Amino acid sequence: MTIIYSAIVCALIAVVYGVITSFQVLRRSPGEERMRDIAAAIQEGAAAYLGRQYRTIAIVGVVVAAVLLLTLGWLSMIGFALGAILSGVAGYVGMNISVRANVRTAQAARDSLQGGLTVAFRSGAVTGMLVAGLGLLSIAVFFWYLTGPAGHAPNDREIIEALTALAFGASLISIFARLGGGIFTKAADVGADLVGKVEAGIPEDDPRNPATIADNVGDNVGDCAGMAADLFETYVVTLGLTMVSIALLVQASEAELLTLMGLPLIVGGVCILTSILGTYMVRLGAKQSIMGALYKGFWTAAIVAVPAIWFVTRWALGDMDAVIGGAGFLDGSDPMTIDSLRGAATTATTATTAAAGFTGMDLFWCMMIGLGVTGALVWITEYYTGTQYRPVRSIARSSETGHGTNVIQGLAVSLESTALPTIVIVVAVIAAYQLAGIIGIAFAATAMLALAGMVIALDAYGPVTDNAGGIAEMAGLPDDVRARTDALDAVGNTTKAVTKGYAIGSAALAALVLFGAYTTDLDRYSNALGLTGAVDFSLSNPYIIVGLLLGALLPYLFGAFGMTAVGRAAGSVVEDVRAQFSGDAGIMAGTSRPDYARTVDIVTRAAIREMIVPSLLPVLSPLVVFFLIAAVAGRANGFATLGAMLLGVIVSGLFVAISMTSGGGAWDNAKKYIEDGNYGGKGSEAHKAAVTGDTVGDPYKDTAGPAVNPMIKITNIVALLLLAALAGGTV
Amino acid sequence: MTIIYSAIVCALIAVVYGVITSFQVLRRSPGEERMRDIAAAIQEGAAAYLGRQYRTIAIVGVVVAAVLLLTLGWLSMIGFALGAILSGVAGYVGMNISVRANVRTAQAARDSLQGGLTVAFRSGAVTGMLVAGLGLLSIAVFFWYLTGPAGHAPNDREIIEALTALAFGASLISIFARLGGGIFTKAADVGADLVGKVEAGIPEDDPRNPATIADNVGDNVGDCAGMAADLFETYVVTLGLTMVSIALLVQASEAELLTLMGLPLIVGGVCILTSILGTYMVRLGAKQSIMGALYKGFWTAAIVAVPAIWFVTRWALGDMDAVIGGAGFLDGSDPMTIDSLRGAATTATTATTAAAGFTGMDLFWCMMIGLGVTGALVWITEYYTGTQYRPVRSIARSSETGHGTNVIQGLAVSLESTALPTIVIVVAVIAAYQLAGIIGIAFAATAMLALAGMVIALDAYGPVTDNAGGIAEMAGLPDDVRARTDALDAVGNTTKAVTKGYAIGSAALAALVLFGAYTTDLDRYSNALGLTGAVDFSLSNPYIIVGLLLGALLPYLFGAFGMTAVGRAAGSVVEDVRAQFSGDAGIMAGTSRPDYARTVDIVTRAAIREMIVPSLLPVLSPLVVFFLIAAVAGRANGFATLGAMLLGVIVSGLFVAISMTSGGGAWDNAKKYIEDGNYGGKGSEAHKAAVTGDTVGDPYKDTAGPAVNPMIKITNIVALLLLAALAGGTV
Repeated sequence: MTIIYSAIVCALIAVVYGVITSFQVLRRSPGEERMRDIAAAIQEGAAAYLGRQYRTIAIVGVVVAAVLLLTLGWLSMIGFALGAILSGVAGYVGMNISVRANVRTAQAARDSLQGGLTVAFRSGAVTGMLVAGLGLLSIAVFFWYLTGPAGHAPNDREIIEALTALAFGASLISIFARLGGGIFTKAADVGADLVGKVEAGIPEDDPRNPATIADNVGDNVGDCAGMAADLFETYVVTLGLTMVSIALLVQASEAELLTLMGLPLIVGGVCILTSILGTYMVRLGAKQSIMGALYKGFWTAAIVAVPAIWFVTRWALGDMDAVIGGAGFLDGSDPMTIDSLRGAATTATTATTAAAGFTGMDLFWCMMIGLGVTGALVWITEYYTGTQYRPVRSIARSSETGHGTNVIQGLAVSLESTALPTIVIVVAVIAAYQLAGIIGIAFAATAMLALAGMVIALDAYGPVTDNAGGIAEMAGLPDDVRARTDALDAVGNTTKAVTKGYAIGSAALAALVLFGAYTTDLDRYSNALGLTGAVDFSLSNPYIIVGLLLGALLPYLFGAFGMTAVGRAAGSVVEDVRAQFSGDAGIMAGTSRPDYARTVDIVTRAAIREMIVPSLLPVLSPLVVFFLIAAVAGRANGFATLGAMLLGVIVSGLFVAISMTSGGGAWDNAKKYIEDGNYGGKGSEAHKAAVTGDTVGDPYKDTAGPAVNPMIKITNIVALLLLAALAGGTV
Repeated sequence: MTIIYSAIVCALIAVVYGVITSFQVLRRSPGEERMRDIAAAIQEGAAAYLGRQYRTIAIVGVVVAAVLLLTLGWLSMIGFALGAILSGVAGYVGMNISVRANVRTAQAARDSLQGGLTVAFRSGAVTGMLVAGLGLLSIAVFFWYLTGPAGHAPNDREIIEALTALAFGASLISIFARLGGGIFTKAADVGADLVGKVEAGIPEDDPRNPATIADNVGDNVGDCAGMAADLFETYVVTLGLTMVSIALLVQASEAELLTLMGLPLIVGGVCILTSILGTYMVRLGAKQSIMGALYKGFWTAAIVAVPAIWFVTRWALGDMDAVIGGAGFLDGSDPMTIDSLRGAATTATTATTAAAGFTGMDLFWCMMIGLGVTGALVWITEYYTGTQYRPVRSIARSSETGHGTNVIQGLAVSLESTALPTIVIVVAVIAAYQLAGIIGIAFAATAMLALAGMVIALDAYGPVTDNAGGIAEMAGLPDDVRARTDALDAVGNTTKAVTKGYAIGSAALAALVLFGAYTTDLDRYSNALGLTGAVDFSLSNPYIIVGLLLGALLPYLFGAFGMTAVGRAAGSVVEDVRAQFSGDAGIMAGTSRPDYARTVDIVTRAAIREMIVPSLLPVLSPLVVFFLIAAVAGRANGFATLGAMLLGVIVSGLFVAISMTSGGGAWDNAKKYIEDGNYGGKGSEAHKAAVTGDTVGDPYKDTAGPAVNPMIKITNIVALLLLAALAGGTV
């Protein structure tokens, strides 16, 4: 229990850091009245959107909670509610600090680049630490309650189901928030650009454009609140499912299990501390490199995490070289031994010859693999989306020959950008598995997510600077202020892409763990599920192919829905703005103020309307597929198809998500590269082509692509909950 | 043997039909001198390209043949050479008739729409029947020689290896031809459009554009020769591997095996006859609907195939209701019984409870499923690429708001277009498997391919009419002629998309059969391969995930290569045309003739150079992955990873290919829909946006997308050959 208490303390420190840093940010000057007015309009719009979004989600949430109560009992319902509510809180608080930091960043940028950077990054850090802190707090306190006051054994069915339900709550909110926010932000962005830049010929963020406030609201509800909910989900699912997989796979005494299940929590806790340390290292050096300043923070958090993780692992496990699965740790009284742990292979006919257990040192190396994957993904994403490397420059160059070649090259880059991350993930899977089986992969994923606070801080910084630029433009601040906010904003494209690559990369590892949990559960509940033998998960079972194909389809269909939704919602923005322009000639003349709130309201309605159906796709698909196939070919094949579907969705989703997020980032920065004066600079034909590419990349990188991550998790978690409900006989 | 002789006779009829119809086409008037001149330039360019392409492939081919000789013996080498050479012949002859039919179509269109349609379609039918005829001939004669004069039993190792090598020969040529031709045609097309339409402001096919001949050459070497090689490959692989899987999976007497292995041949043969019948039904009705006329031919071939297939199946097997696997057909003396036939499941631990065999009637229904899939894919493709349906119109409408929204909507359609084909394939897999196991899936694929002659005829018609339009424009024929050729050309976009959807759909079925062959081979050669137990193909083996991910990566990487190659090659076209324009002002004035041949030569060099590396990707990847993983984790995991990679490449390739080919066709027709006078028609802003979408779709649908089909097959076949070589101890 000491481990869990320590983790709770770390989580509370994160929350305290968040509160203190919030006050630091809020103490800054919000600038002159014109700036405050604009910021207020953004705040108002964002609050209105988020309020309506949460009310809509609440309706779905209450239905789901009722279903969980009826099928899995009240503990699962509470877990679900906890995950859902805290996910919402993380997004809400993050957004609230973000919409207040934007104007303060603009004001601080009047004095210096460092000033703007500090305010923007600190506000991002608030979101980051709150997400990690609340995430850790929710799992740790819930686990403490279940194993302590409620008196459950750590591998009791109730705990496994409740932790899974907690993850489900977080995931369900996050897919709505990611998708709704993503549709809002890109509909506003694309709509504003189309009607402003293209039709009316006025610059971005021009106050005469009625959609410009909506565009700024979008940055906050999409890139901040949506992203925060997404990463909260990733954090909770990864840590929670690592614990669940330990409970399912490792056979040991209660005390030993409690220790092993506490390890992910304390690793998360200690990495919050290194992340907080990292946030204080974000400072411009002599070269005034903003990316360099952010990296200083990130690398500090990552490097200090190495000894910190070693220390807490040793503290928790005692002897780092004692074989877990050897004397004392695995009692060996159950068929579920280290053999099955190595493979979670319920149907494998091959004997794993080397049946040695894993040591604390093995787990430590697995976590180092996780940190290594994070570092590698950061580097790869920067390569594919940074203006100083070949991919972005090749898109910029191809803009010279027109819109078509820009898009072709962008698509080529987006396809190509999947290769290195896949190889990194494959190598990590092999290495972690060789060290400690499925549990090794789970710990690698946990270590990746342990740095979430820092990664989110880098990301949440983006929309703040983006808004700051908008406010500077609209309030008519001097050009050098705008230049500073633009410089701050440019690296935001890369950091945003980094977070998404990181989230989807960790999802690939987490999905393997989830699949392991699924097969183990199936095996365990074989009788309750009415199965006569093991389910055939062999690739030569055609139902496996069927499942893989159906799973692979989901990200495509989901992507299609997301892209279409943005197109439709952007269309309604265009119509509204055209109506405002033609209804009041004073708007273009600059004598009367456009009705910003009306546009915000229209995008809000459109985004909420458009988010529902795609969000339900991953919730309902596993159910439909299972019951259909079970009806046609029996329950065993139904479970086989469902299991294969879980892997199909990750195998295809990984590529769809990475290609969309990296490709979109590359298009965006190719435009920025041209705006920096290359290939003719702003206003040239190449620039127009690059704007097209940027527009295409927008829904790719900010709507469809990132929402694939929670989608993958939901599909997996719904399958796990379905199993539990079927085993309980309540379905 | 009567069955095989009959199949050979049908194949010869196809060849005779091809020769006679060629003469009919060639007898038509090639028009006036100006037209003949242009046609001669196209012929010259196409011949020059194809010659150089084949010389380059020959070098690779000789190396591969030598490797096969050393590792698998001379029969495999001959099989490889036969497949490679006949694939080349099919492409070469098809292209030669195509470059002669174009000018005759233009001339015939001066008189009537029906006249143009007849010449264009007949020339397409020549290519179609030659591909199907030569494909059938190569397998049937080779099989006859091996089982007759050479005296092998039908399931001898030599036959299996030789048939696999035959398929490999066809596949290897086809990936080069598809990719090289695809790069050529789209580099010329995109390059000509960029510098002609966009920069110089001259219309498409304007004779002043030096790239215009190259563009027309491209239609022939890409859409005709490349497509023919691709479909030849698909035909040979599907029929050949169906025979191989029978040899591997069904345990019966020699005579019975010979009968069952002859069945795919005679089904192919009889469907050639129904396809020939179909070609005579292509006539315009009262509504003058060109698509309707083509469909009359297709549906005739498909509907008459139903009784024809029933008849030959009954003729071959005798009693349609006798259980194969029951009395007499399966001798049951081998562990390889109907149980394993139902699943080819070498590692499955579940017992298939219903161990009944399949009947002739079951096989007949499986073939009907194959015909049904073909019909469904044709209909779905038409829905997604036809101008009268929602998807194309939604892209056209979104063009009104600019380049960006056109591309966004096009991408959304391309993602969405994968859903229905996937569901059709999934349903077909389940139904065929329930009827007759893996063999049932193989027969469904065979029946799909049996109609290849007709499908290719519809497709090969496209480049002829495209060229005819170009010639009409360049030769200054009256506007009504151009209007007729344009009408003929418009349906070409849909028929081209149909063929690609059909090829990739059949590839999905064929890949399952190939995977079945792979696992059976592994099982059979377990000792020779030095395996101590069965290979663990369970999804819970992490090496399976590794293989799935690596396999899924291949189509993405391949697509990236293809797209980049087109961009680069198009860039060299742009530079050449700019140089010609600036070097001789007379070209734009229309007083001097541009140097067409120089541009053709530049594209030729670029396409050949660009095709090599991507084409070798699927050849080398299986080898690299196997040896790397085997070195790290042992041979068993090496084989598991390789097997999973084979499925990964189809699971991801299916989506990449369908989304690219359907999306590309939709973009193209959205442009045509606008050119028909919608949303402002030609020259409007919407039209400019639609041209961008069309440009983006070009390499999607004609370079990267279609080449995924041979790529999938090559990966699978290389794995099978690697197994054979490892088992033979020569590697």
